Amino acid sequence: MPMTVPSHHHSGDSSPSIGEYLIKRLQDYGIGDVFGIPGDYVLSFYALLEESPINAIGCTREDCAGFAADAYARVKGMGALCVTYCVGGLSVCNSIAGAYAEKSPVVMITGSPGLRERVHNPLLHHMVRNFHTQYDVFEKLCIAGTELNDPNSAFREIDRVLAACKRYSRPVYLEIPRDMVHVRPATAPPYENPTPASDQRALAEAVEEAARRIENARQPVLLLGVEIHRFGLQDQVLKLAEAAGIPMAATMLGKGVVGETHPQYMGLYEGALGEPDVTRYVEESDCVVMLGTFMTDINLGIYTAELDMSDCIYATSEELRIRHHHYHDVRLEDFLAGLVARKPTPKQSLPPAPTDWNKEPFTLAPEQKITITRMIDRLDEQLVDDTIVIADIGDSLFSSTELTTRGRTEFISPAYYTSMGFAVPATLGASTAAPKSRVVAIVGDGAFQMTGMELSNLVARKVPAIVIILNNRGYGTERLLHPGEYKFNDIHSWKYHELPKVLGGGTGYEIHTEGEFDKALNDAWEDLSGPSILHVHLGATDSSRALDRLGEKLQEAVVGE
Amino acid sequence: MPMTVPSHHHSGDSSPSIGEYLIKRLQDYGIGDVFGIPGDYVLSFYALLEESPINAIGCTREDCAGFAADAYARVKGMGALCVTYCVGGLSVCNSIAGAYAEKSPVVMITGSPGLRERVHNPLLHHMVRNFHTQYDVFEKLCIAGTELNDPNSAFREIDRVLAACKRYSRPVYLEIPRDMVHVRPATAPPYENPTPASDQRALAEAVEEAARRIENARQPVLLLGVEIHRFGLQDQVLKLAEAAGIPMAATMLGKGVVGETHPQYMGLYEGALGEPDVTRYVEESDCVVMLGTFMTDINLGIYTAELDMSDCIYATSEELRIRHHHYHDVRLEDFLAGLVARKPTPKQSLPPAPTDWNKEPFTLAPEQKITITRMIDRLDEQLVDDTIVIADIGDSLFSSTELTTRGRTEFISPAYYTSMGFAVPATLGASTAAPKSRVVAIVGDGAFQMTGMELSNLVARKVPAIVIILNNRGYGTERLLHPGEYKFNDIHSWKYHELPKVLGGGTGYEIHTEGEFDKALNDAWEDLSGPSILHVHLGATDSSRALDRLGEKLQEAVVGE
Repeated sequence: MPMTVPSHHHSGDSSPSIGEYLIKRLQDYGIGDVFGIPGDYVLSFYALLEESPINAIGCTREDCAGFAADAYARVKGMGALCVTYCVGGLSVCNSIAGAYAEKSPVVMITGSPGLRERVHNPLLHHMVRNFHTQYDVFEKLCIAGTELNDPNSAFREIDRVLAACKRYSRPVYLEIPRDMVHVRPATAPPYENPTPASDQRALAEAVEEAARRIENARQPVLLLGVEIHRFGLQDQVLKLAEAAGIPMAATMLGKGVVGETHPQYMGLYEGALGEPDVTRYVEESDCVVMLGTFMTDINLGIYTAELDMSDCIYATSEELRIRHHHYHDVRLEDFLAGLVARKPTPKQSLPPAPTDWNKEPFTLAPEQKITITRMIDRLDEQLVDDTIVIADIGDSLFSSTELTTRGRTEFISPAYYTSMGFAVPATLGASTAAPKSRVVAIVGDGAFQMTGMELSNLVARKVPAIVIILNNRGYGTERLLHPGEYKFNDIHSWKYHELPKVLGGGTGYEIHTEGEFDKALNDAWEDLSGPSILHVHLGATDSSRALDRLGEKLQEAVVGE
Repeated sequence: MPMTVPSHHHSGDSSPSIGEYLIKRLQDYGIGDVFGIPGDYVLSFYALLEESPINAIGCTREDCAGFAADAYARVKGMGALCVTYCVGGLSVCNSIAGAYAEKSPVVMITGSPGLRERVHNPLLHHMVRNFHTQYDVFEKLCIAGTELNDPNSAFREIDRVLAACKRYSRPVYLEIPRDMVHVRPATAPPYENPTPASDQRALAEAVEEAARRIENARQPVLLLGVEIHRFGLQDQVLKLAEAAGIPMAATMLGKGVVGETHPQYMGLYEGALGEPDVTRYVEESDCVVMLGTFMTDINLGIYTAELDMSDCIYATSEELRIRHHHYHDVRLEDFLAGLVARKPTPKQSLPPAPTDWNKEPFTLAPEQKITITRMIDRLDEQLVDDTIVIADIGDSLFSSTELTTRGRTEFISPAYYTSMGFAVPATLGASTAAPKSRVVAIVGDGAFQMTGMELSNLVARKVPAIVIILNNRGYGTERLLHPGEYKFNDIHSWKYHELPKVLGGGTGYEIHTEGEFDKALNDAWEDLSGPSILHVHLGATDSSRALDRLGEKLQEAVVGE
């Protein structure tokens, strides 16, 4: 019986195997690199990958592969990792959970024991409880998943799961029993990708209502979230803002969705944590148009934001709400396109917004002990249009929110799920996705000790990333959250700048003063031979302005038990 | 209303809080150390821990804390880890899964958002899907679990879950919302620990049948598994073996459950992989008494074992089977105690068993390039009664099976679940559990790159462990499993012996020859100031005798797709 799949399903004359089909479909989605670690239940698929146009990028640990694929997805639109059964798969739970929480479209591919060998062998190695345990776990952490155990449905299942990854911008799970990789299905009816459509009458009513509210508002504001980036809606947002002359702010997770040097851009809105001028302007608004924003505690300044939903239009990929009523079945992209076409223009002239981003020029005090605030001010001068900034969590994130993203600068951070150890493996992912961009990673010492040795593969691949390690000898943010003389927040300090001696490549810098930081940054910027490691010694209690504000607020929430 | 819990539940006059009660109960089970990483949802409990007699031992990563707690449990009878919500918890899935698969009694304690703060705040940080996602995941990976969300049941729930951990020798899950840590229950009816009892008539019949089979056998053999160690049945097994004069063998996972210099001990039985003499003796037996053995693929030499169940008595904590019939509700310890009391003695004199462990003395060839086989032969001479050997997987495990455990020597390895990266964090756990024992860890370079930086805490704690890194520049076992010129099995090589420069402690040795290994091992053995790191360069295709045999067999299984 002939194949009935569409022509892009073929490679040459013969029908593809399940493994070949999956590789082809990954390429259709723009995936050119897969991160992971081989293992015995996935070796056949790895061998196929290595023979294909897709690069298999080795990592030191599976969770690092997960973070790398996540960052790759944030830059390129979709990412993938490939690991073995259980010992590999169950090592990426946290990375996949983060991708789920922050809507990053990651495809997790995992091998598993062959269907035939399961029959008489109840206790194959790498197994936990039964053959379905790993699937059961990832069902909780993914938006869609399948076990490719039936040749008749395998191609459609691959199509369905990859479509869900793209549509929901969330991780998916594909498990291939190792004896299915080379199976060539006899027939493969095509998968009909259901194109979700908006309810046209609800859409028209919602657009009209939103447009009128914008037109009649005294002080409308656009508040932008990360979904604008995930779903590629940046140009639409700029059209809307520019046609109407409305000022924009962004949430922490949405930082960089529009270049922060845009003349209508005010800065981050993060409740009591943010710049007071921006906070005031947003909270005095009588029409806050929230686009693709997650209402998370960190985004909303640990719920110190004072937004009255009576004044809000709240549109995300999951819901559309105006004031206190809800429109169902209206897609974010349709709503935004409708607004752009409708061209709402405020009837009144708007009060001046705090959009003046001409910061004071930085003046070096070379002998001065470096502080995190001064370091960020100096770094801010260095960033150019195609820099990718990756911030780990804690003060790496809070201080970095004061950096200015320019033009196509990407700002990547796990700012909602806040998993430590994201930054260094994400650097591998982002630099693979955008080899011409310069990646600057900012990571605390506690987070670096979790995954920082992924530097190994930056060295091996001669990636000229700049990794800035903020060493305050412990979990600094926690010292603020739960004050007291506790030892558990202290960690053993490493000589991070000596890592090139272990890794056989890269360049290390030890930094105590502003002058040393300035010189190291300049040298690192010129050095394209491999990664630079900037080991910055900070005082144990040094903190950014943002962390000081956050600490006060979080402490109330955490300790008030 | 007065507390009604038993007196050991109290500390002083006032009734304990939920957090205090948990800490007290951990101590009742002999837990003196808890491994983990603090995080904001678990800081209050960490503060309690730090003020308690229990030590909170910091790790670089949560999965390392899981491995450390697992090894601690294998040495001390029960272990515990403590991590924060999701970003912490979901990072230990793999470690907990391994403990489940290999029956290691590990208590996982995790914080979570306070019950009160969940009400109006749907998107608190660190959350994946909903507040129950982490619980749902660990339900698949643990034998029991609870969320301590009700003061009235909290103490009983803690009792129930800890009892299950001990009884089943498997991991359990305890989640404490952060606003419950300091809550003091008004009443706490005691938990009635159901003591499972054997069906006495089934027990009597089974013991009698087994005893007669042993007495009438021509060549009975005891085949010992890891449960004998987990449930503390070593003395019983020796009584049975010695009274009856029956030779003993062990499975790979059970290596070391009896000291291997015992005059009735033959060695490991692992199907076609093992020593031919031992294999023959076991397979020619007409009465194999399998005690606490897992019938796993690796234990059974990837199913090359040729055991006829018609000749077997198979007793584990989960089932009792003689030939082809099953006894229900007979506990392993009761069955074993019954047999010991019944004193079965073979009627015939038994054929001589291959129990001669007088190995050839090792003669050093100082200039010779070191091989893994020669290294193990040299190391075997060094081991003493209280050495703890920890083998990571791959050839670290296969080669180590040829080491001789003596007296109370412990041999620890994830020999069924086979998760890479176990050994170095397990070294922290085992050395904490048995501070007077010397730990020797053997780990491949691929596994070391996953978790080896846990050396940091061995340095910080000045643990004089000896970590031997077998560097063949890649995933050596996989090269055998899927032969071909694949790049994916190669990894970037580190200068592992330079790690002391980064870690600020420990001593590194670079080793190419037998002479260098001999000297480094002698020096390391004398050095009690901190960890020693022996970086052993091996040829890319060097492998132990066992791996050669295993490779042949696995290749048939893996590549034959």
